[in-house]
Amino acid sequence: MTENAINKVLREFVNQRDWEKFHTAENLAKSITIEAAELLELFQWDNPTSLDEVRSELADVLTYCFLLAMKIEVQPEDLILEKLKQTAEKYPVDNSKGLSTKYDQL
Amino acid sequence: MTENAINKVLREFVNQRDWEKFHTAENLAKSITIEAAELLELFQWDNPTSLDEVRSELADVLTYCFLLAMKIEVQPEDLILEKLKQTAEKYPVDNSKGLSTKYDQL
Amino acid sequence: MTENAINKVLREFVNQRDWEKFHTAENLAKSITIEAAELLELFQWDNPTSLDEVRSELADVLTYCFLLAMKIEVQPEDLILEKLKQTAEKYPVDNSKGLSTKYDQL
Amino acid sequence: MTENAINKVLREFVNQRDWEKFHTAENLAKSITIEAAELLELFQWDNPTSLDEVRSELADVLTYCFLLAMKIEVQPEDLILEKLKQTAEKYPVDNSKGLSTKYDQL
Repeated sequence: MTENAINKVLREFVNQRDWEKFHTAENLAKSITIEAAELLELFQWDNPTSLDEVRSELADVLTYCFLLAMKIEVQPEDLILEKLKQTAEKYPVDNSKGLSTKYDQL
Repeated sequence: MTENAINKVLREFVNQRDWEKFHTAENLAKSITIEAAELLELFQWDNPTSLDEVRSELADVLTYCFLLAMKIEVQPEDLILEKLKQTAEKYPVDNSKGLSTKYDQL
Repeated sequence: MTENAINKVLREFVNQRDWEKFHTAENLAKSITIEAAELLELFQWDNPTSLDEVRSELADVLTYCFLLAMKIEVQPEDLILEKLKQTAEKYPVDNSKGLSTKYDQL
Repeated sequence: MTENAINKVLREFVNQRDWEKFHTAENLAKSITIEAAELLELFQWDNPTSLDEVRSELADVLTYCFLLAMKIEVQPEDLILEKLKQTAEKYPVDNSKGLSTKYDQL
């Protein structure tokens, strides 16, 4: 499915329920954080986690991310690629290979 | 760009830096939450926020979400659509129209 | 220092800067989450973390928690003890000893 | 109740359940973040929120904060005061009065 296709499905889902009014950029940012923490909760105590639960919580984070991307009129993939270029400059392969050090401490 | 194409770019970026070893499911879940909170920070005090900052922070959340999706071998779009079907059942249009009430209180 | 004493110091700090207007319950909840994620960031990649950094980030979370407690006119310690009683009922020693299982699955 | 008294109650609660083993600094940082997001969830859609719910979720954040403070052997109030001094230097009254601007942009 293309990005435009999934955006269409999401937009329809939201419009049918008249939920656009709740989807301010701030409310979507809150929702992304809330769902991210529910994903994190699956790893709270180092218990084994079921794949189904990870799928379900990751889906929620992704859904709100896509809704925010639509709101600011950008394609998620374009955002990722644009940022990856900047990250590649901050973390040249030679300096960062095998390290989790932050760029400003490399 | 297709999902497979973006996955290929992400995989290459990570492999070149030998960063796969840091990308356990748990570390990615932590990273998604951390980046989500940086996105939220743009709305901390109801100040006006620049679109560029929103793009940049949303890009970070999306990148880690895509990396986790790759890790559990699922396409982000498939996850979103799969969950949307479940959400549609929890929130039938008739019951939920115009409301932000949680499904278990509808 | 007693709780009342620390509340007095916090209130003075905020009043001098005319920052009460930013401290709605919602803004404080956002701030607690943002600071919590900064604390979490110290453990993002399983790197060793310095105690000083943990102290500094935990201090931020605690400060916003105390400000929210003041806002809703309750003492932090009272909140903790009140909740602990409920948690003790959900997790009787006999059932929960040595387990991280959630109470609804015990 | 003094801080030492509440620490004693918390320690007893945890010891009785043999839960110390779960309370690594990292697990407590995750737990603080997870509970903070549950607090934030009360403000997700700008619905009115009940005071009881705020008390209950704030209690959870505070409890994990106090457990982490115990773990790193510091009193919560001392942490708050220590940090407040640093914050006061970053945000002199004259510069910051009535503003939510970050210190590095003042």
